[in-house]
Amino acid sequence: MIITLKPDTTQKGIEHVVEKIKELGFAPHISKGAKRTIIGVIGENPIRYRSVFEAMFIVESVVPISRPYKLVSREFKKENTKFKVGGVEIGGKKVVVMAGPCAVENRDLILEVAKEVKGAGAKVLRGGAFKPRTSPYSFQGLGKEGLKLLAEVSRITGLPVVTEAMDPRQVEVVSEYAHIIQIGARNMQNFDLLREVGRGKCPVLLKRGIASTVKELLMSAEYILSGGNYNLILCERGIRTFEDSTRFTLDLSAIPLIKKLTHLPVLVDPSHGTGMRDLVVPMSRAAIAAGSDGLIVEVHPRPEEALSDGLQALPPQDFRHLMQEIKAVATALGRES
Amino acid sequence: MIITLKPDTTQKGIEHVVEKIKELGFAPHISKGAKRTIIGVIGENPIRYRSVFEAMFIVESVVPISRPYKLVSREFKKENTKFKVGGVEIGGKKVVVMAGPCAVENRDLILEVAKEVKGAGAKVLRGGAFKPRTSPYSFQGLGKEGLKLLAEVSRITGLPVVTEAMDPRQVEVVSEYAHIIQIGARNMQNFDLLREVGRGKCPVLLKRGIASTVKELLMSAEYILSGGNYNLILCERGIRTFEDSTRFTLDLSAIPLIKKLTHLPVLVDPSHGTGMRDLVVPMSRAAIAAGSDGLIVEVHPRPEEALSDGLQALPPQDFRHLMQEIKAVATALGRES
Amino acid sequence: MIITLKPDTTQKGIEHVVEKIKELGFAPHISKGAKRTIIGVIGENPIRYRSVFEAMFIVESVVPISRPYKLVSREFKKENTKFKVGGVEIGGKKVVVMAGPCAVENRDLILEVAKEVKGAGAKVLRGGAFKPRTSPYSFQGLGKEGLKLLAEVSRITGLPVVTEAMDPRQVEVVSEYAHIIQIGARNMQNFDLLREVGRGKCPVLLKRGIASTVKELLMSAEYILSGGNYNLILCERGIRTFEDSTRFTLDLSAIPLIKKLTHLPVLVDPSHGTGMRDLVVPMSRAAIAAGSDGLIVEVHPRPEEALSDGLQALPPQDFRHLMQEIKAVATALGRES
Amino acid sequence: MIITLKPDTTQKGIEHVVEKIKELGFAPHISKGAKRTIIGVIGENPIRYRSVFEAMFIVESVVPISRPYKLVSREFKKENTKFKVGGVEIGGKKVVVMAGPCAVENRDLILEVAKEVKGAGAKVLRGGAFKPRTSPYSFQGLGKEGLKLLAEVSRITGLPVVTEAMDPRQVEVVSEYAHIIQIGARNMQNFDLLREVGRGKCPVLLKRGIASTVKELLMSAEYILSGGNYNLILCERGIRTFEDSTRFTLDLSAIPLIKKLTHLPVLVDPSHGTGMRDLVVPMSRAAIAAGSDGLIVEVHPRPEEALSDGLQALPPQDFRHLMQEIKAVATALGRES
Repeated sequence: MIITLKPDTTQKGIEHVVEKIKELGFAPHISKGAKRTIIGVIGENPIRYRSVFEAMFIVESVVPISRPYKLVSREFKKENTKFKVGGVEIGGKKVVVMAGPCAVENRDLILEVAKEVKGAGAKVLRGGAFKPRTSPYSFQGLGKEGLKLLAEVSRITGLPVVTEAMDPRQVEVVSEYAHIIQIGARNMQNFDLLREVGRGKCPVLLKRGIASTVKELLMSAEYILSGGNYNLILCERGIRTFEDSTRFTLDLSAIPLIKKLTHLPVLVDPSHGTGMRDLVVPMSRAAIAAGSDGLIVEVHPRPEEALSDGLQALPPQDFRHLMQEIKAVATALGRES
Repeated sequence: MIITLKPDTTQKGIEHVVEKIKELGFAPHISKGAKRTIIGVIGENPIRYRSVFEAMFIVESVVPISRPYKLVSREFKKENTKFKVGGVEIGGKKVVVMAGPCAVENRDLILEVAKEVKGAGAKVLRGGAFKPRTSPYSFQGLGKEGLKLLAEVSRITGLPVVTEAMDPRQVEVVSEYAHIIQIGARNMQNFDLLREVGRGKCPVLLKRGIASTVKELLMSAEYILSGGNYNLILCERGIRTFEDSTRFTLDLSAIPLIKKLTHLPVLVDPSHGTGMRDLVVPMSRAAIAAGSDGLIVEVHPRPEEALSDGLQALPPQDFRHLMQEIKAVATALGRES
Repeated sequence: MIITLKPDTTQKGIEHVVEKIKELGFAPHISKGAKRTIIGVIGENPIRYRSVFEAMFIVESVVPISRPYKLVSREFKKENTKFKVGGVEIGGKKVVVMAGPCAVENRDLILEVAKEVKGAGAKVLRGGAFKPRTSPYSFQGLGKEGLKLLAEVSRITGLPVVTEAMDPRQVEVVSEYAHIIQIGARNMQNFDLLREVGRGKCPVLLKRGIASTVKELLMSAEYILSGGNYNLILCERGIRTFEDSTRFTLDLSAIPLIKKLTHLPVLVDPSHGTGMRDLVVPMSRAAIAAGSDGLIVEVHPRPEEALSDGLQALPPQDFRHLMQEIKAVATALGRES
Repeated sequence: MIITLKPDTTQKGIEHVVEKIKELGFAPHISKGAKRTIIGVIGENPIRYRSVFEAMFIVESVVPISRPYKLVSREFKKENTKFKVGGVEIGGKKVVVMAGPCAVENRDLILEVAKEVKGAGAKVLRGGAFKPRTSPYSFQGLGKEGLKLLAEVSRITGLPVVTEAMDPRQVEVVSEYAHIIQIGARNMQNFDLLREVGRGKCPVLLKRGIASTVKELLMSAEYILSGGNYNLILCERGIRTFEDSTRFTLDLSAIPLIKKLTHLPVLVDPSHGTGMRDLVVPMSRAAIAAGSDGLIVEVHPRPEEALSDGLQALPPQDFRHLMQEIKAVATALGRES
């Protein structure tokens, strides 16, 4: 059960509700957002006490929620969540494409790609400064230097930037330079990291783990919303299966499922999700047709020279083709791009 | 390496080529189609003897094929395979929708559904007479009686019929009553069944096994083509993964992958592939956007009464909605429906 | 609910019970064994009519069974099933090892291997005459000729023989020459084949499908027992997962799980289950320690020359080592070998 | 290629080797252990310059390593790694059992369990103070308070303690109170956490991720060894598959595979790996038979009251039975317990 308090509720008012919840034998879970305080009531069937709380003057609404995830569920919020990042609306009628190289390799490259993808219609620049790599001997990213380059290119091109934080200690600096913090698939259940971005205000892009169910993705999202940060975007990026022709199996059925269960916007990453350049365009079309709110795509001017993941990056001309194709699909289905 | 002989080659001519192949230390694999005889040359690097065969008068062409599947590969045949079944072109510009109930339950039901799906734009009627069921105590289908009902309804509505054979001994009778023989996912590696349909002329719809790679699907397809039957349609119907919100994980990336590797037409089954009615329409849109040549969909007038798989069957009004949606996507991408 | 009739029940008596079952609105499922007739009562909560049947003179017992599989469940039969094949007890205190080459290649080879494995302590000879192969161009087995060789070698060595049938039409001939019919993993849900072996009396070894749950294995086993054939051995042989260092992931936890849920004997196939020679001995030890009733192992005198699956076959000296190792484990746990 | 320098090499000597590596176009990767400095030479085929380095006086050995993991590979170190933690040898002839409750709930409980498991023969106490939980609303562990309780109980019983760190910022405090830091399955690819424990001296227990291959586990292990910490234990704890009767699929074939590829000790966690109490004892036997160096097992005096994972915890009497069973298996195979 979720109790939403009125916007002007005082600390004393909050404590009053909390006391009542404890008195009835439940655990209160307080989440202070920018405008309202929301209190989750955790325990066995709390809804039988609904009227107790509805009778309180400072309570705006009481919503029963049967699912294990509360704040992220459609039961809690019926309408789609939309918010703006650097002037770009996420979760609205327009599908949003985020594009850029896997890793920020140097200033020239990131600037070149940013101009290319902006020209083709991308609205957000992606690029990794902190790179999670399977091997300790692989290129690990430029770190803070990479963040500075992203911020500079963002100023030049006007594109907001999404980039990954891997460690709770990186969240502050990433928030400073970037517009959206990405939590990568390997960290979907790095709960301390989730709590850290949940405490902040910077919008978050949370990728599904390669062996995580949709329900687990939503539970991880709940960590972030219950920390007070509601600006969350989910992302399907492929799961691990027995099929070995593709690098992962892109689970597009997760898109309508997520849309059914939650109010949050959701993107698809066809680059990591397939690992094969030839499949990126058709799977991008399919993602939009399945109801995705956008894409996050790897683009590199010379994929064969990329320091990581070159096999799946699109060269600019293929990316322009991708943008035309998804425009056709989006338009046919009453969306825009 | 594949040797294609000229249309008028005699048995003696064939034997001559076969002898030469054996003499050089290779295994010949003869496949007699309606028009031409094709001989696969199996062994270590046969292409070094290419000129030996090209010099023969009766040889039309010699094609080197590096992949383990030969006749199904794009290397063997560059252009897409198209063929007509009961007046309906499969693999052409138009996306083809096959629809109907999971099982043929009785005459009234199958006739009612056939009229509904035809009205909505379906081109082929599906329905199971022989049903593979996990439990020996579940409804096992009407058998031959079901085939007769399908044939009767086909005559009334003009819709060709696709239905499953599970046992090599059923192939003859299914061919007699149906227009397309379906090989179900559980039988994708039932090699005797594959050989049996490969020896016939009835078009075949081969579903991917739930734990089969795309490469294994193509190897099973090779069994059918190498038997002489080239009228084959492949079908993606979901694979088994750890995700338990959906019944299977529909692997749409298999579609562009199959299109890249082979010349055969491919369909998607969003009903079995998701097991959830709410996901059938969005995943149908996504399938077409990914490049599928069509769909095979379960429709039931009263899904809650269905003798099998009711949770995933669409009621007629939802099916009409599906047809409109995929028309929009198909048109946007330069196809028709 | 399962009704077991007394040994001397007449056809008329059976019909009387069946009529009563139908009258009460349930579906009877008759299974005539060598000694007794058993009638499954399928439907909604039949146990409320238990006393109706217990009151009948010809009824020996009435057992409520909550699981979807009936005859294979521990609820139906508490004690372990044991039976003899060619003088060898399966499911008893002794762990039984079946060994031999993947395929019967020729008389000399199969005779050589049979003598080797017998000398090392194997009790049953394995070898494939009909081989399910992914590619139509691979060696498909010697067929009936291979069966004859197996039978001859069985006569010479005294070892009973287990070999695979892939097609319902092969069941008769395999039963004639072999002592145990193997149903391979690809055919675990080939329901017509299951029915065919269920109608016979030849003991059956049923392998788990590579993407089948333990519950589905038991449902397939139910097809065989409900046909009247109770001499069934189950076999774990690895499932398909994302791990690619091993060919399959041998799921040993299936062994104690199967032992808990059913009364049937169960073996482990460490050769196919790992696909790596180096892992066969340790996984054989582990299988016995997990409670397996035995093993089925591939042995080849010159694995590098094997026509199929050479990478996983053990040379004779390694097989002798395996037999010593499992003897140590079996003895330590109160079994014998 | 790995260059090991002599024990007494000066900083200047190290720099000399590093310069040479760079001059030849390779990347040096320095790892300073307690006794020796090891330098990985990363790049294309460095072994062709082997003699250049072997000729240097300060170089002890040069080892070519073809695998992507270097320091963890058997190619680098042939003999098994053994080390002592609080007087207990890990990786030696004796199999080591670590046992305790899933979470440290309170002082009484952890003390009670510690005495029980010590009495039964366990050598290390396990218990979670920082708990990674799927839901933000579940019990999250006692944190530092839990660490203090573990340390106190360790002093009382003499058992060294293993407990988890989830966040790089927790590593210091966990090292202070515990004897072994556990990295949980969800954090196997939390690379900043791996680097943090790699920089320390506290022994580490690294669990395999639920969707990680054995190769990826070894790459993560390489992060820790290349940081200079060689006291590492690996742990198989089940992978995620389609099978839903067990919570995970315990991949015991990983044990002999890890033993073949690496010199590190490896344990099995049969509690998380199966999620079913009834399977813990047989799978523990199987783990030892497969070659595991020990177990990590959940024990709780009243499993039905446990704050987390009660379904899989063993009550003390079952744990005593487990210890007897694995003693029998270990002894039979020439090990001790």
